[in-house]
Amino acid sequence: MSKHLTKRADDYSKWYNELVVKADLAENSAVRGCMVIKPYGFAIWEKMQAELDRMFKETGHENAYFPLFVPKSLFEAEEKNAEGFAKECAVVTHYRLQNDPDNPGKLRVDPEAKLEEELVVRPTSEAIIWNTYKGWIQSYRDLPLLINQWANVVRWEMRTRLFLRTAEFLWQEGHTAHATKAEAVKESRQMQDVYATFTENFMAMPVIKGVKSDSERFAGAEDTYTIEALMQDGKALQAGTSHFLGQNFAKAFDVKFTSKEGKQEYVWATSWGVSTRLIGGLIMTHSDDLGLVLPPKLAPIQVVIVPIYKGEDQLEAISEKMNVIVKELRLKGISVKFDTRDTYRPGAKFAEYELKGVPVRIAIGNRDLENGTLEIARRDTLEKQTVAQDDAVSYIENLLEEIQENLFKKAIDFRKEHTTEVDTFDEFKKAIKNTGGFVSAHWDGTEETEDRIKEYTKATIRCIPNDAKEEKGVCVLTGKPSSKRVLFAKAY
Amino acid sequence: MSKHLTKRADDYSKWYNELVVKADLAENSAVRGCMVIKPYGFAIWEKMQAELDRMFKETGHENAYFPLFVPKSLFEAEEKNAEGFAKECAVVTHYRLQNDPDNPGKLRVDPEAKLEEELVVRPTSEAIIWNTYKGWIQSYRDLPLLINQWANVVRWEMRTRLFLRTAEFLWQEGHTAHATKAEAVKESRQMQDVYATFTENFMAMPVIKGVKSDSERFAGAEDTYTIEALMQDGKALQAGTSHFLGQNFAKAFDVKFTSKEGKQEYVWATSWGVSTRLIGGLIMTHSDDLGLVLPPKLAPIQVVIVPIYKGEDQLEAISEKMNVIVKELRLKGISVKFDTRDTYRPGAKFAEYELKGVPVRIAIGNRDLENGTLEIARRDTLEKQTVAQDDAVSYIENLLEEIQENLFKKAIDFRKEHTTEVDTFDEFKKAIKNTGGFVSAHWDGTEETEDRIKEYTKATIRCIPNDAKEEKGVCVLTGKPSSKRVLFAKAY
Repeated sequence: MSKHLTKRADDYSKWYNELVVKADLAENSAVRGCMVIKPYGFAIWEKMQAELDRMFKETGHENAYFPLFVPKSLFEAEEKNAEGFAKECAVVTHYRLQNDPDNPGKLRVDPEAKLEEELVVRPTSEAIIWNTYKGWIQSYRDLPLLINQWANVVRWEMRTRLFLRTAEFLWQEGHTAHATKAEAVKESRQMQDVYATFTENFMAMPVIKGVKSDSERFAGAEDTYTIEALMQDGKALQAGTSHFLGQNFAKAFDVKFTSKEGKQEYVWATSWGVSTRLIGGLIMTHSDDLGLVLPPKLAPIQVVIVPIYKGEDQLEAISEKMNVIVKELRLKGISVKFDTRDTYRPGAKFAEYELKGVPVRIAIGNRDLENGTLEIARRDTLEKQTVAQDDAVSYIENLLEEIQENLFKKAIDFRKEHTTEVDTFDEFKKAIKNTGGFVSAHWDGTEETEDRIKEYTKATIRCIPNDAKEEKGVCVLTGKPSSKRVLFAKAY
Repeated sequence: MSKHLTKRADDYSKWYNELVVKADLAENSAVRGCMVIKPYGFAIWEKMQAELDRMFKETGHENAYFPLFVPKSLFEAEEKNAEGFAKECAVVTHYRLQNDPDNPGKLRVDPEAKLEEELVVRPTSEAIIWNTYKGWIQSYRDLPLLINQWANVVRWEMRTRLFLRTAEFLWQEGHTAHATKAEAVKESRQMQDVYATFTENFMAMPVIKGVKSDSERFAGAEDTYTIEALMQDGKALQAGTSHFLGQNFAKAFDVKFTSKEGKQEYVWATSWGVSTRLIGGLIMTHSDDLGLVLPPKLAPIQVVIVPIYKGEDQLEAISEKMNVIVKELRLKGISVKFDTRDTYRPGAKFAEYELKGVPVRIAIGNRDLENGTLEIARRDTLEKQTVAQDDAVSYIENLLEEIQENLFKKAIDFRKEHTTEVDTFDEFKKAIKNTGGFVSAHWDGTEETEDRIKEYTKATIRCIPNDAKEEKGVCVLTGKPSSKRVLFAKAY
């Protein structure tokens, strides 16, 4: 496979798939729809996890772990949730293999080892967790219960795509229980904010915070708060959701608590999650035709040094100089790779680190040694600068911050250019067709209209933005009255 | 359920089960054999993970993630491995549920959604990983490949026990590929050393390093290096294993590389893992009849402060004093909980933190305020000391180290007292029956003898210790010649 990528303008989807594989992020596995996350891709996930985990803990949550399997009877207890996921469940029916009498050396499922009750591989853990919470919650003193788990889940998808939609994916799922509705709503909105802070400050990916329309809501939720990001092809990506579950699960699993006043009440619930899908969003927000572009805060390697030398002596002289700088950078918490491999030429290394999105690349050759300089290239703008070795550390430190900010700014600008306010359905269709991106329009609030718009344009309501202004208007399709604009887009 | 534990001397196994549940570490779930790891138990696992992960990375390993499911045809490719795990495999046969026509509101497995090929829920990942490595390894330049994954695995066990043996458990599994046999053997021994360093330095749990006999070896391995710990009931616990897999998986999955000399050769493999079972070992090494005893390096809460007060004014005065100390302790990286709950009395709090094994407990009341003192209790020896507030921080810092060392020393002493060198089978039987623990004896090297000894005494060969001296002897059962002593014990 050539190192050259398909161009985004030629085939965005092909560009994406090639990039994920060529930049060594992930690949398809022998299991249909399940991916292998390669070390370089997993290192990005680890950085995301570390940051999110810190943020969850700072907001009072603790981690726990719940079983992979959900007995069918628990799974079906909350009907809407069960119905929502039933069509994509991997089901364990047997617990043993045996030698296959018809095929020597092969195994078959042992028909004697059929489970009395089938086990669903968790597509989400509300059922198993609320069945557990029943034993944990008796009194208001046990509330709020603020738990998160990092786990794998399985949703049997027919059409899959690395990171964006896979049968198995990695995620975190927060599950909280509260004494009052107000507190639970506050929690789900807080986690929406946490997600937005993370995606914007660390991923440099701007998001719109809003609430889902009825038809896009999580199965079993009363309200789904979402963060929606815009990708470079003009499609929206649902990047994280936080659900106010009302008392649906508490009722399904009979989880009551004794209030301060001594009354028995059902508990109020939330759940919220982000997944390895975020890596897909990260890629599609910043990357270009040369490969991945990573924001410094999540880059596994922030700075790479490529020595340009002939013979061992020159390499030694370069190493001596650079080791001092490497050490200083690492002391500042900057991750540096000094690539001294002699099996690849500098040009090949340049291309490799461009493909892998390393934010800052340093090249140093013999003339630099003589002049006391370095060449510093930034991945986001591809600009190069000659810098005095003595100034290198502080220059790089500032540059990493600048790149982080620049990526965010570029993404914000892109979103601005690709958000269109429309008042007629003709404008709507034109915007979706020409500009892509978000279309802000009045809507009459009915599922029927939503469905018809989707049918005509493939665009769906991404959210009703939290900051949507109250204003009088008429539905872009039906002309019926509407009090606020909502955001439409084609979506992943 | 009463807070009082069954005494170890009365029923060790009952004591263990009660302790795990009452100390809020874990509980059984609605899924047979699968546990829920509660936040306090999971916090210990997180500390273990962080430390092990650091050690793996320092020895050059990277993390990745591989699919949960293994197609049956891949699973059976390495025959010994497949045979070893076939009897305990959870198997996914269907990918969809549907409404049950016979039971309104219920779901059933959709018979139309049968998978063409069944998927095994990974009991271990060699098969799926080596099938992937085939694509990653072409030349000696791609070697060594040093990968680890943190994952859940499922082994359908009939008799389960929280942490020690559960159907689903959390673990890490390292999978490495090397150009030479020598390098692969070195890697598997290195990881045995890493495990031993971790269990001894962090868990304060001494281990014997050795190699497994043929019958105790991992299915598909050429050699299994193990670390074996001794529990307080005289039984051994296999705490971690590192396998030299030879070329078995490389041959089964046809993974060859071009050597420096241009020859096509099969790759050499290792795999190694430790699991949430370590938490069981941690509990059984140190805990007592009052509850859990945690080594400071892995304790989620290292220091707890219990104020003893009447009225808000006294609490305020105590808090003012303690907040300074809390801040100083935290600056030193010590985790402190200041328990100001007014819903529990100090006595109840003392009992709770004893049960939860918090290494250091500070009590402070009105008289202490007047005298500028604190009462500091250590969990390991239950000793109390009055200390000047001004000296508290450095006192506690030293005390935490002392507790860590003391726990290790106690465990070493216990093991010494429970290790018996025997030369006759009568001595052997007496040692297993009376002292329990490790029995060091000559063995003729045959599986048959091993089986007979197990039949007579229930003891198995835990390992042939790495440091076993070459010495002439005769097998304790058969009188046949033997060149070194091996370690027997009853085991978990």
